[in-house]
Parts: sequence; structure tokens; C-alpha cells
Amino acid sequence: MNKKKEKGQLIVLSGPSGVGKSTVIAELLSQRDNIYFSVSYTTRQPRVGEQDGVNYCFVSREEFEGMIARNELLEYAEYVNNYYGTSLKAIQERLDAGIDVLLDIEVQGAAKVKARCPEAIFIFIIPPSFEELSRRLHRRNTDSEDVIAGRLEKAKVEFREIPHYDYLVINDKVADAVGEIEAILTAAECRVENRKGILAQFA
Amino acid sequence: MNKKKEKGQLIVLSGPSGVGKSTVIAELLSQRDNIYFSVSYTTRQPRVGEQDGVNYCFVSREEFEGMIARNELLEYAEYVNNYYGTSLKAIQERLDAGIDVLLDIEVQGAAKVKARCPEAIFIFIIPPSFEELSRRLHRRNTDSEDVIAGRLEKAKVEFREIPHYDYLVINDKVADAVGEIEAILTAAECRVENRKGILAQFA
Repeated sequence: MNKKKEKGQLIVLSGPSGVGKSTVIAELLSQRDNIYFSVSYTTRQPRVGEQDGVNYCFVSREEFEGMIARNELLEYAEYVNNYYGTSLKAIQERLDAGIDVLLDIEVQGAAKVKARCPEAIFIFIIPPSFEELSRRLHRRNTDSEDVIAGRLEKAKVEFREIPHYDYLVINDKVADAVGEIEAILTAAECRVENRKGILAQFA
Repeated sequence: MNKKKEKGQLIVLSGPSGVGKSTVIAELLSQRDNIYFSVSYTTRQPRVGEQDGVNYCFVSREEFEGMIARNELLEYAEYVNNYYGTSLKAIQERLDAGIDVLLDIEVQGAAKVKARCPEAIFIFIIPPSFEELSRRLHRRNTDSEDVIAGRLEKAKVEFREIPHYDYLVINDKVADAVGEIEAILTAAECRVENRKGILAQFA
């Protein structure tokens, strides 16, 4: 019997700066097959060490506006005169091929995705406590006190959006968080509406 | 931080005779803590080897009708002059204590549970194929050809109810089926509505 996935799942991951999302995503991608991490498009200049197609797909303002005009973006936003967005085409091709697609986007972008793809899986990652989030941001040692204070304030605003998500995963230990996300993806595969092909064999 | 479950989940498992449900359930119970298998009440006589409180809770017709009158049953049905039912009290106490409760019931009973507890998790277990179901029923060597034919016909009728379930689990290998059910239960624990206590710490 064919247990192969009938269609990929779109997974939206959000969480505050400092929660350890990148580590969780890297671990998840290393453990799971058939999952594609969607790289965002941006018009901003690459920073030192950033690679095109890895950190972002770097495009010109003209190219980005062409994508907007052709309705090729699942969601996009403009920050500080630069565009950031998610290509619909790259995602759709993978989903149709039975590959899961993971998006790492902010709460506003997630809301836009939800409006267009309500069947996507929305996961919010939280730290074990607010104090621990503060400790992690300090430990990174990359931001000034002002910037950290700003990130913590922003986190509080983001937490208010959690009720719009399907799942809440606590990143206390990375392995546990990854395990919970894996369970969420496996459970989604088992949903009756995702196994219509199997079901048809018994009709 | 307290990751302890806030409330137990009610899990309804259905599947045709011969699919291997009892084996899957036994394996699941041996692997997972904090899960209680709800034993049904019946007015029929115990068969040789059946233990009260293990296979069924055996009660008199008078006792059973008292439970009906006091609205103490989540669902019940009468077959061949005997009552079969699920005690609401035994379930509710466990759910309130944060313990998951597993019910093994037929499609009609499941429909009654869904009407009263729409938030329960409804899982239907299917064999890898209809032919394999037939092979398993023959391999059990307990039923006549007529009885097996009847069970297979009944299975076809039950399969029509699958769209009313949340999840479809294929019992090809027991370990895989148990793994999928475990993922379904873990995912349910991660649902935002089941982590309100955690969420409240960030409000």
C-alpha cells in the first residue's frame, strides 16, 4: 500500500527574537526528509557572510515589484524601504510534489498566510519563560541593552497573537521542541483529509 | 515551568474486527504514561477467562438501567438483549486529573460520543488493504467462513463512517501505527487551547 504523502503541508513557524527558532529549524531539517525551508526574497543588500539563496534570495526592487504585480508572493511587507516576501511559486511546486514547506515568518506575515491558506499549520514557539528569553538575548551578546529591551517589548506584542495559532511549542530543550514539531507534522499527515487516496481504496 | 498536562484528552478508537486494534492498544498503553483505557459496562454474562474490571465491568440489568436513569453513561447500546455502555464518571474523573482516556468503541457509539464531546480525538484504524483484513480474520482461526464474511461486510459499512473521524491510522506494522497514534496525542497536547496555562504566563 502506498503510504506516500498525497500533498505537502505548509507549516508556518513564528516566535520572538531570541527564542532559538533558527536552531530548532536547523535541527528539524536535519532530522526530517521531504521538508523544504522556504527562503524569503528581499531587496535589501546582503550583509557580510550572507549567501544568496541561503539566507535570502536577493533581488532588485524592480524584480520584487514585478513579483508583486504578477501576484507571485504569498505575503510581503516593506520595512525601512526594503521589501521582504515569500514566493508562492517555489512553495506551490513543492507542496504539489508532496514535500512539506516550512516558513519562518513574523506574526503579521503569518496572518496574511492564514488569510490565503487557512489549512496551513501555524506553530508559535515560546521560551520557557519571559526571563529566560531575556537571558538568551543577553547571552547572544550581539545587541545593546536598548535593542534587547526593544526585542522584549516586541515579543510581548507578538505573544498576543498566539491565540491565532494552532500549536504552541515551548523551546526549553531543543530536542523536545523539535520532537513536538515532528509529532505535529506526523499527526497532520494522519488527518483523514490528508489520506483521501488511502481512504479511496476502501470505498 | 510546568509542562504538565492541563486536562486529559478523550480519545476514541474505532476500526473493523480483525484490524489488530487490541494489539495496538496494548502496545500504546505499555509505552505511554498517564493514559487510561476505559473498560465498558455490560449486562451480559462473563465468558470463560473474562475478568470483571478488565474485559468488562459486569453489572446486572437493574444496575445498568439505574446508570441510564441517572445519566451516568456517555453512550450505550443494546445488542441481543444485553446492554453495553461507557461510564461518564470514570472518564470525567481521569480527564480532570490530566489523564488521557482511551475508548475502544464502534462507529455508532463513536457518533454518540462525538455529539456529546466534539473536542475528543477520533481515530479510525484501517488495515493496509481489504485483502489483508480478510487474511487476518482467517489467520485468527476463531470464526467460521460465514462469520468472517459477516465481519468483512460489517467492515465495509464501518469504512463509510471514516469521514466523520479526525485521523486515519493504517495498521500495517503495529509499531508504526502506535507511533502515529502517539504523534496524534502529542500534537493534541501542543494545541494552543490545551496550553492555556502556559500561555497565561506570557499575558
